[in-house]
Amino acid sequence: MAAILECVPNISEGRDLEKVEKILDEVRNTKGVKLLDYSSDKDHNRSVITFLGEPEAVIEAAYKLTKKATELIDMTTHTGGHPRMGAVDVIPLIPIKDITIEEAVELSKKLGEKIGSECNMHVTLYESSASAPHRTNLADVRRGQYEGMEEKIKEEKWIPDYGPQQFNVNAGIVAVGARPPLVAYNINLATSDVKIAKNIANVIRAAKGGFVYCKAMGLLIEETGKAQVSMNLVNPDFTTIFRVFDTVEREAARYGVAVTDSEIVGLVPMKTLIDTAIYHLKLDNFSMDQVLETRIWE
Amino acid sequence: MAAILECVPNISEGRDLEKVEKILDEVRNTKGVKLLDYSSDKDHNRSVITFLGEPEAVIEAAYKLTKKATELIDMTTHTGGHPRMGAVDVIPLIPIKDITIEEAVELSKKLGEKIGSECNMHVTLYESSASAPHRTNLADVRRGQYEGMEEKIKEEKWIPDYGPQQFNVNAGIVAVGARPPLVAYNINLATSDVKIAKNIANVIRAAKGGFVYCKAMGLLIEETGKAQVSMNLVNPDFTTIFRVFDTVEREAARYGVAVTDSEIVGLVPMKTLIDTAIYHLKLDNFSMDQVLETRIWE
Repeated sequence: MAAILECVPNISEGRDLEKVEKILDEVRNTKGVKLLDYSSDKDHNRSVITFLGEPEAVIEAAYKLTKKATELIDMTTHTGGHPRMGAVDVIPLIPIKDITIEEAVELSKKLGEKIGSECNMHVTLYESSASAPHRTNLADVRRGQYEGMEEKIKEEKWIPDYGPQQFNVNAGIVAVGARPPLVAYNINLATSDVKIAKNIANVIRAAKGGFVYCKAMGLLIEETGKAQVSMNLVNPDFTTIFRVFDTVEREAARYGVAVTDSEIVGLVPMKTLIDTAIYHLKLDNFSMDQVLETRIWE
Repeated sequence: MAAILECVPNISEGRDLEKVEKILDEVRNTKGVKLLDYSSDKDHNRSVITFLGEPEAVIEAAYKLTKKATELIDMTTHTGGHPRMGAVDVIPLIPIKDITIEEAVELSKKLGEKIGSECNMHVTLYESSASAPHRTNLADVRRGQYEGMEEKIKEEKWIPDYGPQQFNVNAGIVAVGARPPLVAYNINLATSDVKIAKNIANVIRAAKGGFVYCKAMGLLIEETGKAQVSMNLVNPDFTTIFRVFDTVEREAARYGVAVTDSEIVGLVPMKTLIDTAIYHLKLDNFSMDQVLETRIWE
C-alpha cells in the first residue's frame, strides 16, 4: 500500500450543517482521499473533520476544503465557545504510513503557501512545521483569538508565514503544521475529588516536568461523578500510553484511590496498543510484520 | 474489504524444493489468493504453507495444491521426523475477517468432497468440521500415521468422510477442517530447571484441567539454557494470551522463578494483542473501529 497522510482540519462552523456539508463535499470529491469522520459542535460552533489518503491528494483536499470554507464562513459574525482564529482554524497533517514527519513538514509548507496565495488568508506554520520554537504550540499561536489577530500579527514574532498583505477579516488565520499521531486519552478515578486528578495531571504533564509528549489536565465528569485525568499523548511512540497509565495508577494509589477505567477518544494507531501488549507480555523480539492484518493489508 | 479465509496446508515434502516450488505455484497462480509464507524442514521432510484471500478462491487454491501434491509426492517412499498420514497431511481453514467458523466449516466440507472425488485421496474432517467428537483432535485422527492408516480406516470410528473405495497408498489421507486462529506462544523462565516449566505447562493446559483452549508443554531450550513453557492458544478470543501469561508468571513466582520474556511464533491476529492492551489499560468501552488502520483498510 502507498504512503498515507492523515488530515484533521477544524473549521469554524458547527451550526449551519448545510455549509458544513458543502465543505465536506470538497473532501468527498477528491480522488485518492477517504473521509473517515466528522463531527459538529453547536456550542463550540466548530466542526472537526478527519480524512486521509495519498499525501498529495490529501494536500489537494485540504486546500479545496479551505477555499470553500473561506467562501462560506465569515469570521466577522462568528461566535462560539472554543478558541479560534480563522474560518479554518487549524490543519494538522499526520504521517500514518510510509511517510516521515519531515516529508509531512514539506507538504505542510506547500499547503500553507497555496492557501496564503490563493485563499487570501494568512497561514502560520505550527508544531513540527513551525518557523521558530515559540510558534510550535497552537495555544500560543492562537492566543488572543480571531478578535486579537489583526494586531497580534503586526508583532515581529507573530508575522504569519504566508498570506496576503492585508489581514482578511472574513477569513482570519489558519495554523498549518505536521505533527505525530495524537492520542486523546482519559483515565477515570474512583473518587469525585478533582484535586487528586489535578495533582496527578501535574505529575505527568510536560509543562510541569512530567512526560515530554504529554499534555494533561484534571477535571470532574458530572455524569459519572468521577475525577478524570484527561490527556493528549502527542507522540505515543515515545511517551507510551502504558507507562503513563501505570504512573497515573501508582500516583492515584498514593491517595488511596483506584483507577476504575480509561478511554481512548477517537482513533488510535494500532502500534500504540500493540506496544502496550509487547510491554506487558515481555515480547522482546516481536515484529509488527507478525500481525496478521499487516500481511493482508500491505 | 471482502471476507478473508486463511489456509495453512502442511505437505509431506521438505527436501526436494523443486517439487515444493511446483506445488507453491498452484497457490501463486490462483487469482484472489495471496501466498503469505512457506517454510520447508529437511529433518521433518515437511513444508508448511500459509496463504489467504477470498474464501472461494482459497478453497480453489487448496484443491489445486492438493491435486499437484498427489501427483508429485509418493507416500510409499516418504520418511521424516514429523508425524504424517498423507501427501498433504493437514489443511486447516481459518476464518480471519467477515466469515464465521460455521461458514468455514461448510467450505471445508466442500473442499473435502472435491479432494475425495477428484484427487483419489481419503479425507477426514477434523477440528470444528469433525463428523464426530472423537475425530476433533488431529493427533487422534493421525495416530498410527501413514503406515497404519490403511488398517485404521477400516474401523467404523475412523472411516474417512470422503474419498475413493480403495486406500490410495501413494496419497494417503489428509485431515481437512476449520478452526479458529491459533497463536503459537512461548514463555521463557529464568531457570534451566525444565521440571518447573513442565509443572507450569500442566497447570495451564486443557488436558490437565487448565485453560480450555490451551495446549502446552515444558521443555529446555539448549541455546539459551532456559526452561520454556511452549503452547498453542487454539482460540485466543476465549483463552486470552494476557491471562495465560499472568498465570504462568504467578506459577513461576511460586518456585521463586521470574519470566524473562515471551515470544509469539509466526503470525498473530491484531485482536489478540489489542485485547491485551484493553485489559491492562482498563479500556472498558474500546471498539476495534477506533484502530486507525482498520479505517484505512476497511
